[in-house]
Order: sequence, then structure tokens, then C-alpha cells
Amino acid sequence: MKVLSGIQPTGRPHWGNYFGAIRQYIDLQAEEQAFYFIANLHALTTIRNGAELKQNSLDTAMDLLALGLDPDHAVLFIQSDVPEISELCWILMSGASMGLLERCVSYKDKVSKGLTPVTGLFTYPVLQAADILAYDSDTVPVGEDQIQHIEVCRDIAKSFNSAFNEEVFVLPKAKVLDSSAKVPGTDGEKMSKSYGNFIEVFESEKSMRKKIMRIATDSRPMEEAKEPEGDHLYQLFSLFADDTAVQEMAALYRRGGFGYGEVKKALADAAESYFAEPRQKRAELEANPDQVVQILGDGAAVARRKAAEVLQRAQLACGLK
Amino acid sequence: MKVLSGIQPTGRPHWGNYFGAIRQYIDLQAEEQAFYFIANLHALTTIRNGAELKQNSLDTAMDLLALGLDPDHAVLFIQSDVPEISELCWILMSGASMGLLERCVSYKDKVSKGLTPVTGLFTYPVLQAADILAYDSDTVPVGEDQIQHIEVCRDIAKSFNSAFNEEVFVLPKAKVLDSSAKVPGTDGEKMSKSYGNFIEVFESEKSMRKKIMRIATDSRPMEEAKEPEGDHLYQLFSLFADDTAVQEMAALYRRGGFGYGEVKKALADAAESYFAEPRQKRAELEANPDQVVQILGDGAAVARRKAAEVLQRAQLACGLK
Repeated sequence: MKVLSGIQPTGRPHWGNYFGAIRQYIDLQAEEQAFYFIANLHALTTIRNGAELKQNSLDTAMDLLALGLDPDHAVLFIQSDVPEISELCWILMSGASMGLLERCVSYKDKVSKGLTPVTGLFTYPVLQAADILAYDSDTVPVGEDQIQHIEVCRDIAKSFNSAFNEEVFVLPKAKVLDSSAKVPGTDGEKMSKSYGNFIEVFESEKSMRKKIMRIATDSRPMEEAKEPEGDHLYQLFSLFADDTAVQEMAALYRRGGFGYGEVKKALADAAESYFAEPRQKRAELEANPDQVVQILGDGAAVARRKAAEVLQRAQLACGLK
Repeated sequence: MKVLSGIQPTGRPHWGNYFGAIRQYIDLQAEEQAFYFIANLHALTTIRNGAELKQNSLDTAMDLLALGLDPDHAVLFIQSDVPEISELCWILMSGASMGLLERCVSYKDKVSKGLTPVTGLFTYPVLQAADILAYDSDTVPVGEDQIQHIEVCRDIAKSFNSAFNEEVFVLPKAKVLDSSAKVPGTDGEKMSKSYGNFIEVFESEKSMRKKIMRIATDSRPMEEAKEPEGDHLYQLFSLFADDTAVQEMAALYRRGGFGYGEVKKALADAAESYFAEPRQKRAELEANPDQVVQILGDGAAVARRKAAEVLQRAQLACGLK
């Protein structure tokens, strides 16, 4: 299995990002080949500040490494360090039907949410296709909202192969991420940056505890027995605690006679312990930015070798070489 | 003056292409810096056959060199040999407003003429902007129909400079080609590939003569005196003959008592002599394709050095480096 995953450097990850995506694709690094890239060329459509994009890119790399991405098992690099991607992007764009892109809901969604309608947002699926096809990826872990883009990638690859009568590109498949793990925010709704109800993975312990203590709860009396399933505090606790602790907590809920403050404290302790190692690892990386730059440089070298091979196949097929 | 001109390798040039454009931009090679490129990435939107695009690109290079483009005075290269262009293209695309491209008439024109509506045709002005901006070009010789694209390029460059608060890109100006030299086709209408009324610059002498002999003429009696101005045979003759010969021909028209066959023969002789040197030069180049490849390679090296400099300015400004 050849896995590819791109992460936009648009901000620091929160618990929802971690359990809903990051943890899942880091798990895939055990596969035959896994390529992870910081999608700074994509982010350029929304971040129009050089210092911010640069810092975000480095931060995202450190986040991923701290959270377990292992450069000995996976290739980690920055998208723009592989110029072959931009070259492939134009080659694919030259043949990508306008109708295909016009049917993509993601562009319309973004614009309706107030993002500036720039061409890079509209042609985003073509750059994404270049990212995927450049490494002969066969598996792309994505959220539900990205399934259409993988279909677009397959369409573009198929029509290129058929136009030039050669099997230049490998057709990838989407691996839809498990969205069953519910990650509620501090208000009980789905955790999301846009709802302002999030807790960041690498937030300071103090700030994290403060947010946890303010998690909205109901006003039933302490004595009352409560059903744990469906309770957002319990759901959050379950993400971090081990099975035994989770069962004990469920029993406590069902017995009644406890305060939500107690649960919050248990959650804070569990979260703190869960992220203790990543937090320490991240501090080490922050103290050694050169090491991160080295990892990204090594990753880019590996990625470029593969991308150059695929690009050359495409260039030969369409007469650019 | 820093001049840039791109030539699409979409087929062999005819007299209309030569007098209307090629000759004029080759004349600009005397300027401080002149970059000429074979626009194979643009052509990819319409030529979906590898062998054809490759051959066309080489043919176009040989045509230009034979017609006087002098690699000692100008830089000649193939667009796709400068990967920096594709990189810059995405960077510009990320910020190019959709409205700007949607207002371009050239895309709508092409689609209404039956070209497949592919994304590369729609985003064509962005690639063109990358071509222009990559060499700090200040002057772009274009036909009337391309003026809008130069405006788009200026808009894109201006908004990038202003977004990142740096003078990264030089704003280019269009130099509109002189379209006063009328080049009628064999039917008296404007010479154009799509009208099928053209004579190619490097057509065999036999085929050229045959086409000239079939040029449509009126049926006024030989004796009748005729006004040369506005006569398409006379117009064609004027393109090739020297002043004295043109004056003599005008006098002959006004005197009357001549056959169009005579004029056609004079035109064929003049055209043959006009293109004799380019034709010989082209035969030499055809016999030495390695020399052409060498010229293009040297050109690409010079172009890449300049483009890498500009690309780096852009990458630093927007946080990709």
C-alpha cells in the first residue's frame, strides 16, 4: 500500500483534528510506503502572509513529528520543496475538463463561507491530483468531504492515460477516515475551529485545564444516576483514558453521587498524561529546529526522486521531453 | 528594454504569421535582453499527441532560427525546460481572482470556436503571466487579441506585490504589433490557417508556386488600367519586393496591358528569393538537429538562471522558502 496524506499548515491541531484525522493517518506509516507533506502551496490560497505561512509550515512539521510521525518509517516533506508537483499540476490542468472542477462542491462551499474566490481554490483539486499521482499513491486517507476530490483525481488520471494511450498514472483509492470517534467541543457540539469550542493538542497545560473546567454541563443534582453514553464529558474522557478507567467512569455515572468537577479533573489528568510524551517531544524539536529542517530536507529528497520519475513518464507521454 | 515573446508550436508559420508577428518580434532581438520561448505548455491544451507536440516544438525552433532569430543576441528555449515557470504559475494562481479570468474573452472565444473547455485554457493567462514575470520582462510584443492578457498579468503582479508588501514583480507593458501590413490569403481574404487560404513560409517552392498561380483574381480585360492599392496580388508582391520593383509594378498596374499571370510569376520569384536564405538555413538546421538541441539547451540554462532568481523572490515573499 502506498499512502499519501497532505496536511494544510493553517493552524495548530485541536483534539478533533487529532482523533478525527492525524492519529489515523500517522497509524498508516507502517505501510509499505507513506508520504506525508505539509501542503503549503494549498495554504497559499488562504494565508497571504509570508512569515505566518513559513512559521505555520514548520509548526505543522513539529506537531506531526511530536505526535508520532516517524521519519524512519514515513517520508515527511514540504510540498513546495518538490517543484515536480507544480510541473505536474500544469500538465494535468491542460487536460482537466472545466466541468469536472465546476461540479466540485468544496470550492462553492468555501466561497459561500466567505473565502476570496481565487483561481487557486477553484483549481485546488488539480494540484491535489498532482500531489497524489506524483508518488504513484494508491491509497489516500481522507475525510468524507474530500471523497469527491479523489474521484476528480481518478478522472484526470484516467483521461490522461487514455488521451496518451499509456498507463502513466496509477489510479488511487480514497480511504475514508473513521469518523465514529466523536470529539465534542467545550460546548458539547462537534469540536471545530470555526465554533471556537476547541482545545489544542499542544495548548499549555494551564490553558487546557482552564478550558476543561469551563466545559458546559447540565444542572442535574449530583446524587442522580446518569447514563454515560451521549454525555460529552464522558465521551472526551473515553478518548484519553484506558479501558479500565473508562469502565470505572461509566460505573460512577450510573451510580450517581458525583460532581462534574470530578470528571473534568479526571479528564484533564488523562489528557495531560496522554499528550505528555508528544508535549515533551515537541519541546525538544522546538529547541532543535535544525533537526526538523534536516528531516524535511531528507524527506523532500526522497519525494523528489519519486516525483521526478512520475513526472518524466508524463512528460515523455505528452511530448514535453 | 527586456522583451519576452512566446510562440505556440501549433503548426508551421504562414506568410501572415511571418509578416504580422514573427518578423516583428525577431526585430526586437537587438534590445538589451530578448527571451523567446516555444510555448509547449500552452500548446498542451490543444495538442494531445506526444509525438506531434515534440516534433512541432523542434520545428518551431528551426523556423525561428532560420528566419533570423540569432542565439547570440536572443535567448531561445522551450517553455517546459524551465520548471520555475510551473512553480511560479501556481504561486500566481493561488492569488489570481476568478473574476479576472472569467472576464477574459479569449477563453470564451476559443470554446465558442469548438475547443474543448479544459482548465488549462481557462487558466492560460496565469501561465502567461508566469512566463512574463519570470524574466522581469518589461515589454511584451502582442497582437490586439492578447492585450487583455497583458492587463491580467499586470493585475496579478500588482496584487501579489501589494499582498506581500514587496516589489517582487516588474509590471510589463504590451507592445502592440503593427498590423498595418495586410497579408491577404489566396482568396483575397485575410490569410489565416482557419480559412485554408494560406501559404507556408517553408512550403516547397513547387507547392508555393502552385498556390500563387491559383490566387483568385478578377476578370477585367488585360488592357484595362488598374489601381494597385487594394489589389491583393499587388499587396502580396509589396511584402516581398524592394521599393523599385514595387514602384514598377504599381506603374504597370496603372498602365494596364498586363496579365495577372505575369504578376503571379513576379510574386513567386520575389517570395522565392525573399525566403531563399531562410530556406537554406532551415535545411542546414534540419541536417543538424543536435545543433538546434544545443541552442535550446543553452537558452534554457540562461532562462532558468533568471527565472530562478525571480521565483526565489516570490517564494521568500510568500513564505514558501
